[in-house]
Amino acid sequence: MADQVDSQGKSKMLNGTQKANASAVTAGGMSTETVAMDRRRFLVAGAAAGGAVMAGTVGGVAHAANPENLPPNVPEWSHVLGAAVDDAPYGLPSPFESHVVRRNVEWLTSTTQASINFTPLANLHGIITPNGLCFCRHHGGAAAVNPEDHRLIIHGLVDRELIFTMEDLLRMPSVSRIHFLECAANGGMEWRGAQMEALQFTHGMINCCEWTGVSLKTVLDQAGLKPKAKWLLAEGADASGMTRSIPLEKALGDCILVYAQNGEMLRPEQGYPLRLLVPGWEGNMSIKWLRRIEVGDQPWHTREESSKYTDLMPSGEARRFTWRQETNSVITSVAPERPLNGKGFYELSGVAWTGSGKIKRVDISTDGGRNWTTAQISGPVLDKSLTRFRMPWRWNGEEVLLQSRAMDETGYVQPTFAQLRSTRGIWSIYHRHAIQTWLVRSSGEVENVQLS
Amino acid sequence: MADQVDSQGKSKMLNGTQKANASAVTAGGMSTETVAMDRRRFLVAGAAAGGAVMAGTVGGVAHAANPENLPPNVPEWSHVLGAAVDDAPYGLPSPFESHVVRRNVEWLTSTTQASINFTPLANLHGIITPNGLCFCRHHGGAAAVNPEDHRLIIHGLVDRELIFTMEDLLRMPSVSRIHFLECAANGGMEWRGAQMEALQFTHGMINCCEWTGVSLKTVLDQAGLKPKAKWLLAEGADASGMTRSIPLEKALGDCILVYAQNGEMLRPEQGYPLRLLVPGWEGNMSIKWLRRIEVGDQPWHTREESSKYTDLMPSGEARRFTWRQETNSVITSVAPERPLNGKGFYELSGVAWTGSGKIKRVDISTDGGRNWTTAQISGPVLDKSLTRFRMPWRWNGEEVLLQSRAMDETGYVQPTFAQLRSTRGIWSIYHRHAIQTWLVRSSGEVENVQLS
Repeated sequence: MADQVDSQGKSKMLNGTQKANASAVTAGGMSTETVAMDRRRFLVAGAAAGGAVMAGTVGGVAHAANPENLPPNVPEWSHVLGAAVDDAPYGLPSPFESHVVRRNVEWLTSTTQASINFTPLANLHGIITPNGLCFCRHHGGAAAVNPEDHRLIIHGLVDRELIFTMEDLLRMPSVSRIHFLECAANGGMEWRGAQMEALQFTHGMINCCEWTGVSLKTVLDQAGLKPKAKWLLAEGADASGMTRSIPLEKALGDCILVYAQNGEMLRPEQGYPLRLLVPGWEGNMSIKWLRRIEVGDQPWHTREESSKYTDLMPSGEARRFTWRQETNSVITSVAPERPLNGKGFYELSGVAWTGSGKIKRVDISTDGGRNWTTAQISGPVLDKSLTRFRMPWRWNGEEVLLQSRAMDETGYVQPTFAQLRSTRGIWSIYHRHAIQTWLVRSSGEVENVQLS
Repeated sequence: MADQVDSQGKSKMLNGTQKANASAVTAGGMSTETVAMDRRRFLVAGAAAGGAVMAGTVGGVAHAANPENLPPNVPEWSHVLGAAVDDAPYGLPSPFESHVVRRNVEWLTSTTQASINFTPLANLHGIITPNGLCFCRHHGGAAAVNPEDHRLIIHGLVDRELIFTMEDLLRMPSVSRIHFLECAANGGMEWRGAQMEALQFTHGMINCCEWTGVSLKTVLDQAGLKPKAKWLLAEGADASGMTRSIPLEKALGDCILVYAQNGEMLRPEQGYPLRLLVPGWEGNMSIKWLRRIEVGDQPWHTREESSKYTDLMPSGEARRFTWRQETNSVITSVAPERPLNGKGFYELSGVAWTGSGKIKRVDISTDGGRNWTTAQISGPVLDKSLTRFRMPWRWNGEEVLLQSRAMDETGYVQPTFAQLRSTRGIWSIYHRHAIQTWLVRSSGEVENVQLS
């Protein structure tokens, strides 16, 4: 790996003066005064060299001779006491990261209660999405539920109708699993061509968290299913009374009544104190603020599975109950929000996912899909989870077309947009999972483009 | 699993009136007025039944005849629009979870800058610790570092001394791994007997996160190690100039120059913008605000590895360089902060971890260590990570002594406190990893006790 790392523009050798300063810095044995002076010199050298790196030159130490132009030699944080341990009982990101937030698209919906905000994927690393940055899609706003007054009822074609308090559920056998959660409309704005100039908006309706709760099967077993039971209706306690029908086979499979996300209790906008998680399927089936599960013998044909969340085909017919989120991937380390800063070494990294199980392979192309190289899968490969891929790459400064292409364990290969359109037309909103193309300009700027 | 769940005090059957109300709630086909009325009835039934469950009785519907005594029939959150998607660009926990915070112990240190706060383990689920709740141990406060001015220097016995900006590091080949991070002093207050009446304080100097950054080996390979190189010194940019010596074998093993934690950039109190992670070893070796790595041929004998972070043995000698965090576990679902509310079914759940690799097995005793039952290991079992264990349990209302005992993949078994004291005496502060005992009183209250 190391020999693929450019020593130019990435990191640099010190010149003689810098070496002398640096080697004068030791951990002990000097008077306080000496240490302070040497630390000061060290930091001058560091700042000068670093500035040169960022300006795209190598070995530039012009500033070293003129320290007045430099930032403070000893940074403030090295000579004052920092924050105390009781300053932030619940911690927050650095103010220097205040640009890393969820964002909505003002023109997309007529209200911001029934709307969407997006996960800032270009600023994320690994596979876990921190709770504060998980995208939201609400139909009646994020309900503010008091957990003491919240109930879950199980009724319909069951032997025993049941009501649970949150305390009941927290005493029950629990499971924890890492899964992605994706809105069916992720990428929906792209169906008719490249529109959104940010990864946050092209792919940001997804997160991946460790979810903890009670297996839905545990609760259904307790209620006892009548022989005719084939479907479930899940209903939310928010003002939209969000409802979806779920086939029994999935409900008895890997569905979870979730109360915790990444270790702590669910956030309000994620369904606190209780949501359903239907792993790998359309996000809105994972009903938030879950208050009711009815067991029936047929689907309910709710608004969210008839007029919405169906796919209009070229024939004019609508595909429905297209629950499974398909195999998808995107490069996140190079994106409109992360332009390149001069030629040289970069890591191409991104995330892949599939509602069909595990990701098997991800390929990367730097020439718009003509040639492909298999990327390294890095970190745990989990069922219905984001999977991180990485590939070392050296940019020569010319225009390139970057793509990633995921393959899942069933052998399904992520299609090009042309392939997807050839079967599904252009009238869909949901389930767009085509290969994404980033055009890197010679300036280093990155654009979202569609290849014909 | 389901047959182990008590239907009394955990969940309950509806009586006739409740059934009628509940089954009247359907998803469509009624006028708005009808739906609203039926929803109202449904929620009356739910609230009444739930209140009875929490009071420890079964089927109690006394309140149903007197609705004025009940909470609002239709909760506020079901008939008003909730929060908009632009209300919280960076999300926070529910106000109902405001008790779940890091806490410090006022008498423990003379200042709150050089002090500790503790992770609220009793309120956590799964294995991931959310960033806002990760314990902090600072020696000069949490430094507020500007990433543009931060530099990492590599010098000493290397072929090429190097300076890195954060931008340099973010372009380099990266890795993501889930690891626990534990202060060597976790449980230190317990060495001389039971003292702290909260799990947060007995075991809360630990977290487990997905860490992303550059493998330390990648950077050292780039610098080139001279033949005499055997040790590293890592130094922080905080006011304490925190320093520790690290043997080269570990440095070239699994150490990471970390910039991201659970997906987002490190929090200030976790070392933003750059920290070292030395997986499985004493937490303070994972130097925060990392600014300098010096390569040498012997350890530096810094304050934190001579007067501090050594273990005073009964002989009067101090063990030193006892880096590895030992095999440990604790039940978290029953704890002083989580008393039992009446007899019946509970899940016993907790976390186990080891600096020696993976957890192989966890046993649970409900009689103070006389008899043991192997718990279920639930979720991924990862190297040097928290591992979640779970076991169904029915409490008969009598006093019990709950314990968990972890075994790692090397075969090492977590010792009793008596066993630990027999070899290490009582003068240590660090590396206490004895079996924890929770005494459950017949009232359901839980106490931290030491068995003789």
